Amino acid sequence: MNLILLNHDDFVTGDRVRITGRRLEQVRSVHRAAPGDELTVGMIGGRIGTGTIIRLGDSSLDMTLSLDRDPPAPLPLTVILSLPRPKVMRRVLYSLTVLGVKRIILIHAARVEKSYWQTPFLQNDAIRAQLLHGLEQSRDTVLPEVVQRSRFKPFAEDELPALVRGSVPLVAHPPAGSPCPRSVSGPVTLAVGPEGGFVPYEIDLFRKAGFQPVTLGSRILNVETAVPSLIARIA
Amino acid sequence: MNLILLNHDDFVTGDRVRITGRRLEQVRSVHRAAPGDELTVGMIGGRIGTGTIIRLGDSSLDMTLSLDRDPPAPLPLTVILSLPRPKVMRRVLYSLTVLGVKRIILIHAARVEKSYWQTPFLQNDAIRAQLLHGLEQSRDTVLPEVVQRSRFKPFAEDELPALVRGSVPLVAHPPAGSPCPRSVSGPVTLAVGPEGGFVPYEIDLFRKAGFQPVTLGSRILNVETAVPSLIARIA
Repeated sequence: MNLILLNHDDFVTGDRVRITGRRLEQVRSVHRAAPGDELTVGMIGGRIGTGTIIRLGDSSLDMTLSLDRDPPAPLPLTVILSLPRPKVMRRVLYSLTVLGVKRIILIHAARVEKSYWQTPFLQNDAIRAQLLHGLEQSRDTVLPEVVQRSRFKPFAEDELPALVRGSVPLVAHPPAGSPCPRSVSGPVTLAVGPEGGFVPYEIDLFRKAGFQPVTLGSRILNVETAVPSLIARIA
Repeated sequence: MNLILLNHDDFVTGDRVRITGRRLEQVRSVHRAAPGDELTVGMIGGRIGTGTIIRLGDSSLDMTLSLDRDPPAPLPLTVILSLPRPKVMRRVLYSLTVLGVKRIILIHAARVEKSYWQTPFLQNDAIRAQLLHGLEQSRDTVLPEVVQRSRFKPFAEDELPALVRGSVPLVAHPPAGSPCPRSVSGPVTLAVGPEGGFVPYEIDLFRKAGFQPVTLGSRILNVETAVPSLIARIA
């Protein structure tokens, strides 16, 4: 935890916050903090700054706050990701959050197992917990928006055209002829398929919505490796 | 498993191989293959091609081989990685193998917990298994060399200067002023520190060996996200 995330419920007076539970445990075990110490803090959805510990009790900790800077700039990138198996999905959501992606759309695809949509990790609370961990890692405060679309065709036909407007739409497709472009200026919409790729019918719908199929080379990357690689290349 | 790795012990005659055990299970369950089907195969350390199934028994499978192409080009990149905790280490070794890195040096650093060096996952067989999985994923045949150096100072003073010769040496260091360069031509030696970074003394030794501290920005990335991001940017 490189930053302690705070919300409005944490305030006990105007500039004094009290934390308990998991966050307190982290401060105790990882930061080994003592009264007078300063911690990096941020308001969820707001600014970042310093919390000075003024009281450290057994079950709670009080800090005064000085929120003096904005969180890091978001990446101008929307990621459309075909739903990976639950364990991988959690790691990729974490990684996307750490990298600063603020809009993530989980979609179905022919090569996605339908049972993946039943995982409890897709429930709002579970996703939110994962995103908060990512923000704590990267010292950010702005939660990504995560949208779920469990039917490919209506998503691709009805939503995709409006969604990509004003952005460079790219679909990662290992057999594509074009290498993934580097340092694209302006917003990008990046679609990443399942292991085994999108099927031709899906690639056709992406093409119709303006997407260019791009590749990182002949190696077949696992999703967890492909996602940061594509983003680092584009950003 | 996007490629079935073979070794010389698998040959029963000149161009006929027999596989059993884990690889056979994979062919049965994932590929659902039948006699006459073609599978992508590769010789460990050698060429890639097609295996045609000529017999599929309960406990073994026979194929004839046509090895007609070279494995994908290796990345001209040596990665020096401070030892992460075992679970992360395994995932990063996998990811490095998938990306085509052929030389990995695991080192100690001040912020690495000494107990990490005791994990059974550092034993040769465990590392080799992880690397083989990575090759199977990325359709490669060339095993990375993994070296372990559990003492930082002798490594940095005695080995580092010779190791970086002929390469661009970069050390990922979040507080660094210089952004990580893009598409570096020629060999690179990339050092990546623990969560929390290398300590100043360590950065000094890297500098003395010619390393330039570079950063991907103000976000603090976890190792699993940082490694593919850095490599995609450099490569």
